[in-house]
Amino acid sequence: MTYVLVAILCSLVGLGTAAYYATWVLKQDPGSALMQKISKHIQEGALAFLTREYRTVAIVLVAVAIAMTVFLRASGGIVMALAYLVGAVFSGSAGFIGLTIATRANSRTTHAATKSMPKALEVAFRGGAVMGLTVAGLGLLGVSLCFVVFLFASGLVKDLELVPGAMLSIFGMQIPATTIFSDIIPGFGLGASTIALFARVGGGIYTKAADVGADLVGKVEAGIPEDDPRNPAVIADNVGDNVGDVAGMGADLYESYVGAIVAPLALGSLLLGFRGALLPLLIAAVGMICSAIATLFVRGKEGGNPGRALSLGTYGAAILTLVACLPLVLWLVPAGTAFAGKSVVNPIGFFIAIFVGLAAGMAIGQASEIYTSDAHQAVKKIAEAAKTGPATVILAGIATGMQSTAASIIFLVIAMGVSYVAGEWAMPLGGGIFAVGLSAIGMLATTGIVVAVDAYGPIADNAGGISEMSHQGPEVRAITDSLDSVGNTTAAIAKGFAIASAAVTALAYFQLYATKVGLDRIDILQSNVIIGLFIGGMFPFLFSSLAINAVGRAAQAMIEEVRRQFREITGLREGVEGVEGEYSKCVDIATTAALREMILPASLACALPILVGLYSKSMLGGFLAGSLIVGFLLAIFMANSGGAWDNAKKYIEGGAMGGKGSDAHHAAVVGDTVGDPFKDTAGPSMNILIKVMSVIAVVFAPLFTRG
Amino acid sequence: MTYVLVAILCSLVGLGTAAYYATWVLKQDPGSALMQKISKHIQEGALAFLTREYRTVAIVLVAVAIAMTVFLRASGGIVMALAYLVGAVFSGSAGFIGLTIATRANSRTTHAATKSMPKALEVAFRGGAVMGLTVAGLGLLGVSLCFVVFLFASGLVKDLELVPGAMLSIFGMQIPATTIFSDIIPGFGLGASTIALFARVGGGIYTKAADVGADLVGKVEAGIPEDDPRNPAVIADNVGDNVGDVAGMGADLYESYVGAIVAPLALGSLLLGFRGALLPLLIAAVGMICSAIATLFVRGKEGGNPGRALSLGTYGAAILTLVACLPLVLWLVPAGTAFAGKSVVNPIGFFIAIFVGLAAGMAIGQASEIYTSDAHQAVKKIAEAAKTGPATVILAGIATGMQSTAASIIFLVIAMGVSYVAGEWAMPLGGGIFAVGLSAIGMLATTGIVVAVDAYGPIADNAGGISEMSHQGPEVRAITDSLDSVGNTTAAIAKGFAIASAAVTALAYFQLYATKVGLDRIDILQSNVIIGLFIGGMFPFLFSSLAINAVGRAAQAMIEEVRRQFREITGLREGVEGVEGEYSKCVDIATTAALREMILPASLACALPILVGLYSKSMLGGFLAGSLIVGFLLAIFMANSGGAWDNAKKYIEGGAMGGKGSDAHHAAVVGDTVGDPFKDTAGPSMNILIKVMSVIAVVFAPLFTRG
Repeated sequence: MTYVLVAILCSLVGLGTAAYYATWVLKQDPGSALMQKISKHIQEGALAFLTREYRTVAIVLVAVAIAMTVFLRASGGIVMALAYLVGAVFSGSAGFIGLTIATRANSRTTHAATKSMPKALEVAFRGGAVMGLTVAGLGLLGVSLCFVVFLFASGLVKDLELVPGAMLSIFGMQIPATTIFSDIIPGFGLGASTIALFARVGGGIYTKAADVGADLVGKVEAGIPEDDPRNPAVIADNVGDNVGDVAGMGADLYESYVGAIVAPLALGSLLLGFRGALLPLLIAAVGMICSAIATLFVRGKEGGNPGRALSLGTYGAAILTLVACLPLVLWLVPAGTAFAGKSVVNPIGFFIAIFVGLAAGMAIGQASEIYTSDAHQAVKKIAEAAKTGPATVILAGIATGMQSTAASIIFLVIAMGVSYVAGEWAMPLGGGIFAVGLSAIGMLATTGIVVAVDAYGPIADNAGGISEMSHQGPEVRAITDSLDSVGNTTAAIAKGFAIASAAVTALAYFQLYATKVGLDRIDILQSNVIIGLFIGGMFPFLFSSLAINAVGRAAQAMIEEVRRQFREITGLREGVEGVEGEYSKCVDIATTAALREMILPASLACALPILVGLYSKSMLGGFLAGSLIVGFLLAIFMANSGGAWDNAKKYIEGGAMGGKGSDAHHAAVVGDTVGDPFKDTAGPSMNILIKVMSVIAVVFAPLFTRG
Repeated sequence: MTYVLVAILCSLVGLGTAAYYATWVLKQDPGSALMQKISKHIQEGALAFLTREYRTVAIVLVAVAIAMTVFLRASGGIVMALAYLVGAVFSGSAGFIGLTIATRANSRTTHAATKSMPKALEVAFRGGAVMGLTVAGLGLLGVSLCFVVFLFASGLVKDLELVPGAMLSIFGMQIPATTIFSDIIPGFGLGASTIALFARVGGGIYTKAADVGADLVGKVEAGIPEDDPRNPAVIADNVGDNVGDVAGMGADLYESYVGAIVAPLALGSLLLGFRGALLPLLIAAVGMICSAIATLFVRGKEGGNPGRALSLGTYGAAILTLVACLPLVLWLVPAGTAFAGKSVVNPIGFFIAIFVGLAAGMAIGQASEIYTSDAHQAVKKIAEAAKTGPATVILAGIATGMQSTAASIIFLVIAMGVSYVAGEWAMPLGGGIFAVGLSAIGMLATTGIVVAVDAYGPIADNAGGISEMSHQGPEVRAITDSLDSVGNTTAAIAKGFAIASAAVTALAYFQLYATKVGLDRIDILQSNVIIGLFIGGMFPFLFSSLAINAVGRAAQAMIEEVRRQFREITGLREGVEGVEGEYSKCVDIATTAALREMILPASLACALPILVGLYSKSMLGGFLAGSLIVGFLLAIFMANSGGAWDNAKKYIEGGAMGGKGSDAHHAAVVGDTVGDPFKDTAGPSMNILIKVMSVIAVVFAPLFTRG
């Protein structure tokens, strides 16, 4: 009990820090009236999107909860449904809080930039830290509460051991403790996944529909340049940055974070009893505290490099976490700890797994950076290819993205292999799979600071936009530009990290699935399994194609709305003082279109694993593995192709190959436009896809009875 | 013995028919002096490419043969090396013969088109039939000869049963009969794969380097339009069509054909002894005869549809083969046939597997057609997207290609599932895997006519080019255009078929690999296997990126050579009478560049499976499955995206969306250029990649000893 209270305490420290930063940010000067007005439009737009999204999510949540209660009655359906709803509400709240602060930090950052760079960096980072610490804090708090409510309150645990035969009595059901770990708590994970599905897929369609829509309006309506404030889609575009990079990324990593606790926790409970379940929870708690401490390291120096300050935070948190995990592992599962006839031999092996997971996350993030930053060869080559036109830009970008999969796969595979071997060394005949799960929580322990650094990006980006729209001087622009450019790098790293974390989380769920349905092997020589692999491998391609087409259609709806406003609102096109576009209408149109467009892909993602599982559980095993591998590859490919095109365009705009307005620039713009739905819609959707399908398999496992 | 002689006889019938058609084609009027001159340049270029390629291949062949002799001594290395060399020489000869006739049929088709459509169709189809029947004939002959030489000549077989304990005495070695099936004959398959690797990957780089090079010369050199005969790269471009679509496709399907006989033959020998080995061989023999007969069905009617005539050939051969296979199966493996303690219960199950394989090949081909023909929605939508510029064209094409994977996977999976179940019904506990192999030979039995119809395409295409360059009248152009347009459809179908056949062949080799190394399971819950899956899945992405970049670099070399010729050959740019470009120099430059560029990807493809296998044979199992699935998906994706872009451009050139020269057309050209290396280099390379890696695993299996 005490130990779980420690975890709760840690989560409260994180949330407290977040609350402190939020208050601090809100106390900063929100800037001039114009800055505030623009910021207010963005806030309202973001709120409108969230409201609309959550209204739709609510219906899905209720439906799924009812389905759980009915179909999973035998495995404590109604309790699982409760955990599910709590998981969803926590994730939704994190998104709401993070987005609220982020959209208020933007104009404050702009105003701070009129003072100094370190000040502006502080405001932007602390704005992001609210999101980061809230995501991690609520994730950890939620899982810990499940422990407390379901386990301790009913006296199932005593002195770090489960009381043999003890049952949780609830709603007239008798639920054994093991079921709580393997069935009830994964329900919490599915709640996180449901929100992530909407935030990432719906949000991804929204943000690119608004972006592409706003761009195309600039082209089809004469006299309205791309970023003109008269264009009512411009605000929707800014809202999109927050919806995609703050709320979307937050929900994505919240889901990974929860999954990386939940899956190893269930696997650990089977291997090592209560100690095994507690270990992932306490690693997360340690990471939480270290992340909160590390936010203090991020301080700009006048004339210093803001990127270095952010890296200090990320790496500082990682090192602190590692240092603290070593004694934790040695204390909780010392050599000789025995359970179910097996015992721990070399606990240090579990620590190695945590370490390689953390290292792999950082390495895959860095690999993304190398393929998408103009400081390296790949982006320069794409810019070079722009001299011979758009076709060669596209080919070079696709080749770059495809090539980049190799580095990421190699890091992932090393982490998997090393942690498996280390786990078997730690505890023969079973430790390996648990250790792979530990590498997942190792990677995600510092989620708090990773999301903080990532959410900093769109705040800096928005601050740059506001400084332009509110006509600030070049010194201010120079500061916001330098912050924004660092934000692009951190975004690239976070993207790679998010993909890697999705893969390890899905992998942990996959192992848990196999354990739950009692598959002791998933043999690809069996035709069922190989058929599952093929279908699972195909689905990410199909899903991507649906997502890419959805952006196109939603953008079309947006363009039509803008044209309607130009037609019906007198004075808008002419820019008459006091006449404003109906910004919220544009936001609403894009929101509706995005939510409508996600119905088909999201339904398929939820229904397919259940249908396959009902047909055969080993086919579902193959299906999950196939979708995991192909989804991971496509995620890396699309994120890095898209990022490389984006930065190749920016590199040319910086003066290379003839600079802005040259033929090379026009060619690079084509690459960037192709890359938009790649890197911000279809690519990130893969993260969710692989996690959501595997957690569905875990939760609905009791229904799958046919080999 | 008699039965193998029947197979040899069938192959000789096929080869005889090919010889008859070759003589017939050569007897046709080769057309005007100008037609002959252009055709002669193409012939010389194709010969130059082949000569150069075979010179390089020879080195590789000798090296591999030595490696086999040394490292695989224990499993009859030197005999295997012999089979390997024979396999390669037969495949190389088929390519040589086919290309020689195809490049002579082109001007003859043009000349025939001055007479009538049916006549021109006949010349073009019979030119292609030489390639088709030679490919199938030599493939079947080679495998049959291996039977005769290694088995019967040494008296290992009597009355359809292997003589127990009998050994083949050769080069001082004693080789048991089962080793001949599982080790020696697969060496023949690897020979076919080596040639295919060069023909498809090297040829694919060549053809697109020449194509892109010729196009870009038109852009960078003022006053030289794309198809101008003064451009010395134009001939290289025409050569490329033959090298890619005739020799490349031929070697690809030769490899599939041989693999689809060899792998089920080895699996069959383990399940049913000699009868099991004979069945795939005789199915191929039946398909051979039926293909030869079906070539007679292809006759144009004045005013008729040439497409219908070609379909009649393809479907006619399929139906005849099926009708003949039923009695064959019932006679060779009747109910009650027993081997190794198991016996056949329902032989009709084996027939069902043959049937579904054949049907799936046709269905996947048709699916390709639906996604890439302008008669259907997908291509029209891409053309529509061209109105908003190149970026939307690219996105629409990528989405189309990704979506098209679903249909192909579903047909493939149905074929696999049904044939497995049918096989287990035919012969419980073992028949399933053999039946999946039978579905592969079912799909490929009619290779003769499939390749004939495919090789018809580039002949018709070349004939169109020659009729333009030799200034024929509009009636002649109308005939060659109608033949060419049908050729595009048949090419799309053949591409889908080639991919499907590669997948089933690789799958059969994969099963054989597992059997040979004694893996009774390949369990994805083991970390070795999942790591193998990840690495195997990544490799097709890496390979594609290398192939795409290779085209870019080789095209660059080509452009420089053309510019040198313009600089150094006086009168070339001005088009002075009698001054000609050094066509063969261009061909040679592109050839050298293509062969140089394929070194890295080809070496990786050969080395990786061996390295992985030496580390762990179950990791190699995962590796093969991962590369098979991802390679298949990328092959379909790239082939159909590329084909759809190509036809969207042609659709616009036909007058839609503003027609030739409109903005939409410019946008569509970008799509087409991106699609070129997709559909003609990287995409088709995937077919070879998945087969070559799995046959390498089979051949080098004896080296893999670590679990």
